[in-house]
Amino acid sequence: MKRRALAAVFLLVALTAAFAADDARQQILAVISQQQAAWNRGDLEGFMAGYWKSPALTFFSGGRVSHGWQEALDHYKARYQGEGREMGTLEFSDLKVHRMGRHAAYVTGRFRLAMSKGNNPQGLFTLIFRKFPGGWKIVHDHTSAE
Amino acid sequence: MKRRALAAVFLLVALTAAFAADDARQQILAVISQQQAAWNRGDLEGFMAGYWKSPALTFFSGGRVSHGWQEALDHYKARYQGEGREMGTLEFSDLKVHRMGRHAAYVTGRFRLAMSKGNNPQGLFTLIFRKFPGGWKIVHDHTSAE
Repeated sequence: MKRRALAAVFLLVALTAAFAADDARQQILAVISQQQAAWNRGDLEGFMAGYWKSPALTFFSGGRVSHGWQEALDHYKARYQGEGREMGTLEFSDLKVHRMGRHAAYVTGRFRLAMSKGNNPQGLFTLIFRKFPGGWKIVHDHTSAE
Repeated sequence: MKRRALAAVFLLVALTAAFAADDARQQILAVISQQQAAWNRGDLEGFMAGYWKSPALTFFSGGRVSHGWQEALDHYKARYQGEGREMGTLEFSDLKVHRMGRHAAYVTGRFRLAMSKGNNPQGLFTLIFRKFPGGWKIVHDHTSAE
């Protein structure tokens, strides 16, 4: 009887851990999906809501480093909402969530930005997520285009 | 007296955690430093010893995805040790180690490969490290050139 009780406890712990991991995965994928939806309705603040609102947020894009949530928002506004600019349609694919302990994860994937004219930027990204009291946020973004 | 004992226990726990974190940081930096030294003596197997020896190891380089430790070694051999090729001198800078729980971390930095002739590739990397029984290894490498 003791053994059976112990087995039941182990099973409960394992199931709880499995559900928690799956829950985190769903929450992280929801952040990314909300970012995509925000971009595609032209809502850059909504897009940036997926990122850590801190000057310590880092972006690696090709060979360029930039820092800070506000700086990133300003950069996106100038680049995609300036005169004669367009935001295009953002699409993610091949998303893979890798947990790293209870409060961290990294996500890999591909992006493609379909523009009405000109070239369609596409490439790869690695996102580092941390779990904050307000939910999962990207703290580091490494993006490289093809 | 009870309070003091409690405070002492807390201090001990905090110090142990701090030393463990610092230890992990040193171990991770040692892996990277050994990779650099191995590259610069033309030892590709030594360089690859910093990576997870698994087909599940992933490399993002610009817009290109590749998988697997053996494939990476073969690629490096063809690219840097083939006829008329040279390995150059590899230099890392701006290394930052970010812990993510007890068994994971990510490292950001810059690389520069000084060649005897032609251009000198340089750029940024994000490395995901996991702690295995055999030590800290890179499980995902995202590199982008300038």
